[in-house]
Amino acid sequence: MFKRATKDFINIDPLQTGGKLTEEAREALLEWGDGYSVCDFCQGRLDEIKTPPIFDFVHDHLPKFLGSDVARVTNGAREGKFIVIHSLALKAKPNTYIILDGNAHYSSYVAAERANLKVVEVSKTDYPSFKIEADKYAEVIEETRKKGEIALALLTYPDGNYGNLPDAKKIAKICHEYDIPLLLNAAYAVGRMPIKMKKIGADFIVGSGHKSMAASGPIGVLGMKEEYAEFVLRKSERYKNKEIELLGCTARGATIMTLIASFPHVKERIKHWSGEVEKARWFSSKMEEMDIIQLGDKPHNHDLMFFHAESLYNMSKKTKKGRFFLYKELKARKIHGIKAGLTRYFKLSTYLIPKEDLRYVLDAFDEIIKKYSG
Amino acid sequence: MFKRATKDFINIDPLQTGGKLTEEAREALLEWGDGYSVCDFCQGRLDEIKTPPIFDFVHDHLPKFLGSDVARVTNGAREGKFIVIHSLALKAKPNTYIILDGNAHYSSYVAAERANLKVVEVSKTDYPSFKIEADKYAEVIEETRKKGEIALALLTYPDGNYGNLPDAKKIAKICHEYDIPLLLNAAYAVGRMPIKMKKIGADFIVGSGHKSMAASGPIGVLGMKEEYAEFVLRKSERYKNKEIELLGCTARGATIMTLIASFPHVKERIKHWSGEVEKARWFSSKMEEMDIIQLGDKPHNHDLMFFHAESLYNMSKKTKKGRFFLYKELKARKIHGIKAGLTRYFKLSTYLIPKEDLRYVLDAFDEIIKKYSG
Repeated sequence: MFKRATKDFINIDPLQTGGKLTEEAREALLEWGDGYSVCDFCQGRLDEIKTPPIFDFVHDHLPKFLGSDVARVTNGAREGKFIVIHSLALKAKPNTYIILDGNAHYSSYVAAERANLKVVEVSKTDYPSFKIEADKYAEVIEETRKKGEIALALLTYPDGNYGNLPDAKKIAKICHEYDIPLLLNAAYAVGRMPIKMKKIGADFIVGSGHKSMAASGPIGVLGMKEEYAEFVLRKSERYKNKEIELLGCTARGATIMTLIASFPHVKERIKHWSGEVEKARWFSSKMEEMDIIQLGDKPHNHDLMFFHAESLYNMSKKTKKGRFFLYKELKARKIHGIKAGLTRYFKLSTYLIPKEDLRYVLDAFDEIIKKYSG
Repeated sequence: MFKRATKDFINIDPLQTGGKLTEEAREALLEWGDGYSVCDFCQGRLDEIKTPPIFDFVHDHLPKFLGSDVARVTNGAREGKFIVIHSLALKAKPNTYIILDGNAHYSSYVAAERANLKVVEVSKTDYPSFKIEADKYAEVIEETRKKGEIALALLTYPDGNYGNLPDAKKIAKICHEYDIPLLLNAAYAVGRMPIKMKKIGADFIVGSGHKSMAASGPIGVLGMKEEYAEFVLRKSERYKNKEIELLGCTARGATIMTLIASFPHVKERIKHWSGEVEKARWFSSKMEEMDIIQLGDKPHNHDLMFFHAESLYNMSKKTKKGRFFLYKELKARKIHGIKAGLTRYFKLSTYLIPKEDLRYVLDAFDEIIKKYSG
C-alpha cells in the first residue's frame, strides 16, 4: 500500500488543518466505504435518503448551519460554485459578466470560464495588506454595467492566500443595490468559524467538506436563498425528481457519511473560533519577532496566514541546498505544509494545531535562521 | 455512529456488487482519509501528483486499461459524461442534438439537459428483449439530421436495467459514417469485464469507480481519443495548467486512492469474466425453473439481469403484507438488493457473489414461492 509520509508530521498546510478526520469520521469511512453503500435504501435521490439519515442532514441540520433557506451537498466547493454560476449563466445574454474579488481562488475563475461568463475583478490593495475593499465593488459594478449585464458577484471569504476577511455584509448590500446576487466562497470559513449566509446578506454560500469540515473528500456544501432554489435546483423534464445541476445525485458515497459523522464535532469547534484567532495572532507575533512579516489583515482574523521572510530568501541564495533548504530543514523536524522551494513568501495555517506544536514550529524557524545566518 | 444494516447481508443490488472495497482499498481509506491528504505534494494539478503515484495511474495504467489515448479521473461516470457533452455542446449551434440509446441511464439524459442539448432516442425493442439494435442508430441519425446538427451519440454498454450488451462496434461504425463521435457509458463494464474503447471504435468512454471498480465513491474514469483531448481538456486562459472542464481537479481525496489500491485486483478480476457470465446464466436458468423469467439478452452476457415474476406479483395481491412481502421475506433471510415494494419486475446482479450464496438466494425464492402459493 502507498503510505502517507506526512501522517505523523505537524502539518501546517492550510489545505490540511481543517480536513483532518474525527474519530467518528474514520469509523464512518470503514462502515460506508463500499462504493454505493449509502444507496442501499435510496428511493431515487441522494438528499432524500432516510437510512442513513442524509435527508435530515441536508434538509434540516445543514441549512440551519449555513444560515440558508435551502442546502445541498456537492462534490466540493468548486462544484457548488459551478452549479450556481452555470445556472445563472443559462439565463444570461451573451456578453454577461461575473464579478470576482481579486483574491478569488483559481477555481472560481475556472468555473466562470466553464460557464462561458466574462470575468471582471475587484482589485485588491497592494502589499502588504492585499485587502478587498467593499466600495470597489460599487465602482466595478458601475463600470461593468456599461459593457454588459452582470449575472453574479462572488466574494472569497476568507481568501486562500492571505486569510483576509473583507466586509462581506457591506459588499452584499452594494451588490443588492444593483440587483446582483452574491455568492460567498466560504471554503475556509464554513466548518472553521461561525458564519451564516443570511446574516451576511449573501444569496449563495459554498463550503468545503475536505478543506474545513473534517470530511473525506471530495465533498462540499451549497446553501442558497429560497428564491434561487427553484431555478438552480430545477428538475429534469423527464425524470421529475432529479435535479439537473446536480446530475441527479452528487456525493453518493462514503464522503457524505464522513461529513455527517464529523458534523457534531464541527458544530462544536466553531464555538472556539475566538481561541483559534487568538492563537493565530500569537503565532504571527512570534514570527514577526524573527522578522518574518505577516501580510494581509492585521491584527489577523483567521488561522490562514501569509508571511514574507526576506531573511530566509537571502539565506536560500547563499546555501548549496538553494531554495529547498527551508523545506528540507522543516522536513527533518517532521513539519510539513510549506511548499518545497518557497522561502520568501509562504502561507500556513495554525488551525487546531496545539500551541505546544506551534511552539515547536516557531523554535524550528528560530533554529533554521540561526543555522543559516552569518 | 450510523451503522450500515446490510453490511453482512448477501447484497444482490447491481449498484453494490462491483463497488465492494478490496482489503487494500480499505487500508487506503484509513491512510488517505483526511480531507486533502493526496495533495500534500501537489504541484498544481491532481493528475500530476507523483507522491502518491497518481500521475502514473492517470497517464499510464488507466489509458492502457480503458484502451484510450488519454484518461482522467472524474467525480463519477455521470460527471465524465457531462464533461464530454458540455464540451461538445459549447461548439454546437443552437438546436443541436445528442442521440441516446433507449436504455440510457437517467443521468445521461440529465447531463444532456444540463448542457442544453436536445435529446433523441434510439428506441429499444419490445418485451422481452429490450434490445438496442445497431441499425436503428442509422435511422435515427438520418431523421435527426433533417432537424439539426448532432453533437454526439451515446451508448449504454451494458445498460443498467437489463444488462444488455448491444453491438457497440457496429454502432461506432455507423456513427462514424456520419462523422458523429460515440461516447460509451460503460459504468457497468469498466472494472467488471474486458473492454477497450478503441477496440470497439468509440471516441469516449466513462466508467464508475464506486459502481464497478471496487472504489469508494464518488469517483469515475474518463477515456478519450487524442483528437478530442485538446478541446475537452482545454486549459484555462489565466491558469495555464488547469483543465476547465475538470474545474482544475476532480477526485481530490481518498476516493482516488481506493481506486488505485483496488486497481491490481480489478485488472485481475476482469480475466475471470467468462466465469461470471456462466454463473449469471446458471442463476438465470434456475430462476426460470421457478417461472421467474429473465428478460433482455438471452443467453445473457452480463451479471446484471432483469426478471419478470408474474407469480410473485400475484402473491403480493393476496398477502396482507402486500407488495412488500418479497422484500421482507428476503430481509428475514439477510438478502438485500431487490427494491422494497417490487415483486413483478426487478433487477439483480450475481457479480462476485459466491455460487453457494447464490444457491442460498435461489433457495430463498423457492421457499417464498412455496410459502405464498395456494
